[in-house]
Amino acid sequence: MRNLSLLTDLYEFSMANGFYHDLPTTNATFDLFYRRVPDNGSFVIAAGLQQVIEALQNSQFSDADLAYFRQLGLWDEQFLTELANFKLTCELQALPEGTPVFPREPLLTVTGPLYQAQLLETLLLNIVNHQSLIATKARRLSEAAAGRPIMEFGARRAQGPDSAIYGTRAAVIGGASSTSNVLAAKQFGIPVAGTMAHSWIEAFPDELTAFRQWANRYPDNSALLVDTYDVLNSGLPNAITVFKELRAAGHEPVGIRIDSGDVTRLSQAARAQLDEAGFPDAKITISNALDEAILTSLRHEGAPIDNFGIGEKLITSASSPVLSGVYKLAATEQDGNIAPKIKVSASREKLTIPGQKQVYRLYHRGTQRAFADLIALTSETIVGQTELTVVNSDPVSVDREQQLTNFEARSLLEPVDLTTTSAVSVQTIQANMQAQLAELPRATQRLVNPDTYPVYMTTTLSHLQSELLTQLTVGSD
Amino acid sequence: MRNLSLLTDLYEFSMANGFYHDLPTTNATFDLFYRRVPDNGSFVIAAGLQQVIEALQNSQFSDADLAYFRQLGLWDEQFLTELANFKLTCELQALPEGTPVFPREPLLTVTGPLYQAQLLETLLLNIVNHQSLIATKARRLSEAAAGRPIMEFGARRAQGPDSAIYGTRAAVIGGASSTSNVLAAKQFGIPVAGTMAHSWIEAFPDELTAFRQWANRYPDNSALLVDTYDVLNSGLPNAITVFKELRAAGHEPVGIRIDSGDVTRLSQAARAQLDEAGFPDAKITISNALDEAILTSLRHEGAPIDNFGIGEKLITSASSPVLSGVYKLAATEQDGNIAPKIKVSASREKLTIPGQKQVYRLYHRGTQRAFADLIALTSETIVGQTELTVVNSDPVSVDREQQLTNFEARSLLEPVDLTTTSAVSVQTIQANMQAQLAELPRATQRLVNPDTYPVYMTTTLSHLQSELLTQLTVGSD
Repeated sequence: MRNLSLLTDLYEFSMANGFYHDLPTTNATFDLFYRRVPDNGSFVIAAGLQQVIEALQNSQFSDADLAYFRQLGLWDEQFLTELANFKLTCELQALPEGTPVFPREPLLTVTGPLYQAQLLETLLLNIVNHQSLIATKARRLSEAAAGRPIMEFGARRAQGPDSAIYGTRAAVIGGASSTSNVLAAKQFGIPVAGTMAHSWIEAFPDELTAFRQWANRYPDNSALLVDTYDVLNSGLPNAITVFKELRAAGHEPVGIRIDSGDVTRLSQAARAQLDEAGFPDAKITISNALDEAILTSLRHEGAPIDNFGIGEKLITSASSPVLSGVYKLAATEQDGNIAPKIKVSASREKLTIPGQKQVYRLYHRGTQRAFADLIALTSETIVGQTELTVVNSDPVSVDREQQLTNFEARSLLEPVDLTTTSAVSVQTIQANMQAQLAELPRATQRLVNPDTYPVYMTTTLSHLQSELLTQLTVGSD
Repeated sequence: MRNLSLLTDLYEFSMANGFYHDLPTTNATFDLFYRRVPDNGSFVIAAGLQQVIEALQNSQFSDADLAYFRQLGLWDEQFLTELANFKLTCELQALPEGTPVFPREPLLTVTGPLYQAQLLETLLLNIVNHQSLIATKARRLSEAAAGRPIMEFGARRAQGPDSAIYGTRAAVIGGASSTSNVLAAKQFGIPVAGTMAHSWIEAFPDELTAFRQWANRYPDNSALLVDTYDVLNSGLPNAITVFKELRAAGHEPVGIRIDSGDVTRLSQAARAQLDEAGFPDAKITISNALDEAILTSLRHEGAPIDNFGIGEKLITSASSPVLSGVYKLAATEQDGNIAPKIKVSASREKLTIPGQKQVYRLYHRGTQRAFADLIALTSETIVGQTELTVVNSDPVSVDREQQLTNFEARSLLEPVDLTTTSAVSVQTIQANMQAQLAELPRATQRLVNPDTYPVYMTTTLSHLQSELLTQLTVGSD
């Protein structure tokens, strides 16, 4: 990855300069988390950690960067010298990519010198918000596709090159099985997919000639696009003619793609014609502005579709194009004294959870069935406990305190190795995600109106939060 | 710009390989245009041409790319050798960046060897769709801000690094005046803006101390964030205390920023307090999830706001996050014989306009008041004409033929110099956009329910379209 150290908001540098001078020995912990799930779902699929690691490995400031800073004239030479010799000493904890993560749970924490930890905010949010957004959308589409493969087709409608490249990576993490994007396929080892566009058909005198030329050129990769003129009266009969010629020459056709029209009716008629012509194995691919609602409707109508090519609705998460992850100060530490921090707001909903924390997934003991998550201070011992009083972490929940019994807890946040030069494959991450989804209640994975999955905090954490809130309220009188 | 030659859909390569072998002497013209305007507006602001030029200047395939292609095993060695020695010979015509462009008008055309022109599709669409989308959104926000500056604040919510970097460029083209994004500011010469985050306040024992430390560090850049605890009862009184101390020390405060709450009420109360305290020049900046509707409402309510910081709603065009530009074959040419092409579809709305074309803006003669655009074949002479029969280019319009008199036409598509190493500044592009907007009817610039601006085509073009449609319809019987 290229050097993205300047991809940050100006105020991060201004605050970093201030912290560097005014609080030089203060360390801090920041939490990266979100409050609202895109598309009113109940969880997000964490993604982007690999690119965070690569970006941090490239944390440095060039002479040109420093010249630009001097031109801005905002920060002094001592701080610029610190940047010129920048050495990141922060430590990160993160959820492994592909982990389903619920609101308010830190999916990444940064601990280190206050000025450094502050400086990372914008870049980390940019990368994690983007990839987690697209992985989350891909999970939704996979759920709606009910086991049939999803091909990522969105490069032309993505929000710039990285949106296509890293969006494709995230789409595979969330469940897509292939992509049309050659660069992303090469870079991340993703199967690459695609057939012809309408321009292929139009460049030849007629559709049958265009199909024949294609089959001649790619006899074992002949997926034909049948909707340039008229699917049922032209495209499909011409495709079947060519399929018969292919078979006579010893090749089996791949199938057809339909990119417009009423997909249920067309796929049903196409399936019938292909079967009748002796091509029951020819696949039908659909690629017309698909989203979760359309996939669900196609499934209910029994449309005989084998593959879905999904473009803009996946690569931009068009129905919900922003993951509003935030990066909030959770604690400062100076001379061994830890001061937990909260952020209050006019809206109680935005109250943050203080302190250095760990996230646990809670299972019914001896099973792989998770029923809730728990946020605790890192200083608390949770693993091994089987009974616990907990408090709902949702600041607007009514029924807050709960007794949990007969559970086992597994911690989710892991130390990040910033020196690693190897990357986990996207397929492994996808498999990890699927394994974790299998442990979550089905009702919370529903696409519409999902059941809320409880995210608790320990009573210690709850008391700490209340205490800090009281201090602030008293203080502001 | 890095090498993005692989940022393309697989099928572009598969078609290119086929065209290279099967239609080796065929040239083609493709048009890049769109049909629907984001946010139901009436036009798009063209952007991205500079990055198209840079990407095409880097069109080459590395040994690693070729090794990957061999591993895919889809295309033969002769084609791979052509790619290894790739030399782009296509010619481009484009609207200058910042030009308001209407549906169906080519904003970029590519003419050259069919296989090359095909190969460019995905990358060109990716870049132009993205930047034009964000420039269009920025124009809308600027319209709603009615002359008050817009600061681009969206890096953390952008769809990956490029979405932040090039999205910021596009935001300035469309009307933003500054950005918080340091990398984009440095790269494109954009004024950089920003003050503190809540974490600055929280890192100190109390708000007043945090403000004092900031004012001490940045006495001439003291814009204070006043909503960490309570705007009217804490943030503002503390800010005024520090502003008085600053003034006593010979510095004038910049102002305050409010990031939450009811912005109208808070800004009115803040203005009153600041004025009463003797700081009528202290600016009020707002940065809380703003969009066109909120800006318009704030204006109607008379909220005394000086600057708007706009994040996710601008950098992702969240309310309408996709510009659906397409790239369609308009003509082929072989041995001097030009064959215009159209793409038909089940929906008449998607009928394309054939041939090599120019776009003209039509003015009431002797004025700078544009009233319509006109699409013509490049072989037609339009400039100098003052009377013309034209046809509405919208394939679903009812009242199609019109007589135009007493107008003058100015051509919009210009040849693109692919060898240029200089870039027009974003400020120049923004000024160019504003000059062109001033020529368009106000009613078509409305944010809600804008008047349709007519886009005509010549009768020659209309007849050609009808003729090709008839041929295709006859052929498909």
